Amino acid sequence: MSPTGPARPARLVTFDALHAFTMNALQATGMPEAPARTGADVLATTDAWGVFTHGTKALAGYVRRLQAGGLQPRGQPRVAAEGGAWAIVDGDSTLGMVASVFAVQVAIAKARQQGIAYVGVRNSCHFGAAGYYTWLAAREGLIGMAMANDIPSVAAPGSRGAITGSNPISYAVPAGRYRPMLLDMSTATVAGGKVYAAKMRGESIPENWLVGADGKPTTDPSGFPEIGALQPAAGHKGYGLALLIETLSGLLTGAAFTWRVGSWMWDEPHTPTNHGAAFIVIDTNAVMPAAQFAARMEALIDEIHAAPLADDATPLRVPGEIEWERHQLAMRDGIRLPEDVVATLRKAAAATGLSPDWLKESCTP
Amino acid sequence: MSPTGPARPARLVTFDALHAFTMNALQATGMPEAPARTGADVLATTDAWGVFTHGTKALAGYVRRLQAGGLQPRGQPRVAAEGGAWAIVDGDSTLGMVASVFAVQVAIAKARQQGIAYVGVRNSCHFGAAGYYTWLAAREGLIGMAMANDIPSVAAPGSRGAITGSNPISYAVPAGRYRPMLLDMSTATVAGGKVYAAKMRGESIPENWLVGADGKPTTDPSGFPEIGALQPAAGHKGYGLALLIETLSGLLTGAAFTWRVGSWMWDEPHTPTNHGAAFIVIDTNAVMPAAQFAARMEALIDEIHAAPLADDATPLRVPGEIEWERHQLAMRDGIRLPEDVVATLRKAAAATGLSPDWLKESCTP
Repeated sequence: MSPTGPARPARLVTFDALHAFTMNALQATGMPEAPARTGADVLATTDAWGVFTHGTKALAGYVRRLQAGGLQPRGQPRVAAEGGAWAIVDGDSTLGMVASVFAVQVAIAKARQQGIAYVGVRNSCHFGAAGYYTWLAAREGLIGMAMANDIPSVAAPGSRGAITGSNPISYAVPAGRYRPMLLDMSTATVAGGKVYAAKMRGESIPENWLVGADGKPTTDPSGFPEIGALQPAAGHKGYGLALLIETLSGLLTGAAFTWRVGSWMWDEPHTPTNHGAAFIVIDTNAVMPAAQFAARMEALIDEIHAAPLADDATPLRVPGEIEWERHQLAMRDGIRLPEDVVATLRKAAAATGLSPDWLKESCTP
Repeated sequence: MSPTGPARPARLVTFDALHAFTMNALQATGMPEAPARTGADVLATTDAWGVFTHGTKALAGYVRRLQAGGLQPRGQPRVAAEGGAWAIVDGDSTLGMVASVFAVQVAIAKARQQGIAYVGVRNSCHFGAAGYYTWLAAREGLIGMAMANDIPSVAAPGSRGAITGSNPISYAVPAGRYRPMLLDMSTATVAGGKVYAAKMRGESIPENWLVGADGKPTTDPSGFPEIGALQPAAGHKGYGLALLIETLSGLLTGAAFTWRVGSWMWDEPHTPTNHGAAFIVIDTNAVMPAAQFAARMEALIDEIHAAPLADDATPLRVPGEIEWERHQLAMRDGIRLPEDVVATLRKAAAATGLSPDWLKESCTP
């Protein structure tokens, strides 16, 4: 996910109103209450972190697939195979968030038994913000790692077009008196949405964001996304990490990989996408007394907060601090939904026969 | 590790001669035969991959610490604590390669039982090329991941000086008829050695390599390494990954972390450095039939090899292919040791009373 500040104008909505609407929309497709609640938990929390690219903005797209059958409203993820510290979950083409929360819970339970666990997922779909699932582990005192594949959109060094997905990876680490340290990053230099936004504004882009039709870096986003591919973060490093993520999420789980993955946005909505995902959870309490690990994490974070700053720099943060600050404000004052999110929520309302009035009522004054 | 082509002039030595000398030098410090063989395996193989920054170039430095007591020639790594799928290894201040090979072997054995295993290491030292340890796992049909911390040398976005080590991460994946897919990268933009080399040549450097005394990007390497810090790869992404590596290698293992880690090069040679490391191994055979996983990996690699190229680009590789090609040539024709490596091997010979004649005899014609 790419944390992005809300565009202006924005609507101020409460977390509870956003959560209720999301849950109602999912239930309107025939999804039972429990998985609909899970889906709403993931998407509304992602918006509360200010990661609007990966929150309820996607709801209308998910609803479309749930209604067309590419996603199964009554799908039930299950453990298809397992051993002492591993499992493969078959997502049964249910909402990616439902399959992923199920899978990370299996990983948490197994890590509590064995110290670490790997759970791979197949027959899933776009899982949104990887950081939600690692936070579930960190909230319970465990270290979580999450990753997933997606349709190719990112070049390799020297390729003409896309080779891997933007394959995200996240981790979260419980940190004593601090909120969990939480990183959620794609292995591309930037999110495709940033390139698209520059195109819409008619602006040029930095040299390391995109390659053009000839496979060479370009500062011209005007052909995106039809032409060109994103560049991998730090060149061969991002490309290499994307292939590890593809391996653990796609190849080892029996999911689709690279060009075999379906697009949850563009492909026929009645066809499953067969995304893969992977979760690795480590139980810190098995390895080290909780108080000792907490004290060491606090010492690390204190040290970073106290480190000398570059001229004009803002205070150093550990990963996740900005999202947690936004989350606190969002739970107190409401979530400022950007207009592009509001627009897709209106689409989701129209598709499910729900009233969009709550969006109007909670307009920013 | 940063794969670097050999500088000219170079000496052509056989793998066996380099291995025998390394083993003899380690034994001359009082190290028994078995751990000395392990150390030589790691360092000579690293040179055979062409990764001369992390191979026998460091031998003289290790010998110095082994003779002064900061490294224990007769140290014996042991499992200090363990559970079903995890262990913490106490390296007993033996050579980092000896502690790390022991630890990854524990991880391989546990992964074969449980599907995945985490093994953390404390009381270790610089472990050289992370890729050696992941290759040990991949050679046996398992996926290996390896990481380690080190003295801070890399800035965070906005910091004035170093915050984390260059904290490397490696993975290796068995790949059917292909050699294992193998990535070994630091989380800094470039190795410090590249900055230093530019300084020696009086050249300026790209804007994303270094920050200067003010914490801002600089193209002037002349103050390095005393002044400035390396930049993290892809900014907050490399910084964030470095903190995960610090957590799994340093904080969770009981090893030193960030500024508490000793320098194997600069600190008093009689003081242990207490580096940390972490290994995660996944048994693909537990999760998926070996032939099926191999076929899927081959399909991925075939697809990448067949992908359209950017104008003027060389054929696409998967991580590790270049190193495996160098390795094949090295085993057939010998290893072309750069002169800076030869110079430190002469130091190791002088310190251990061994003859350096083999280096002279095997001069490149």
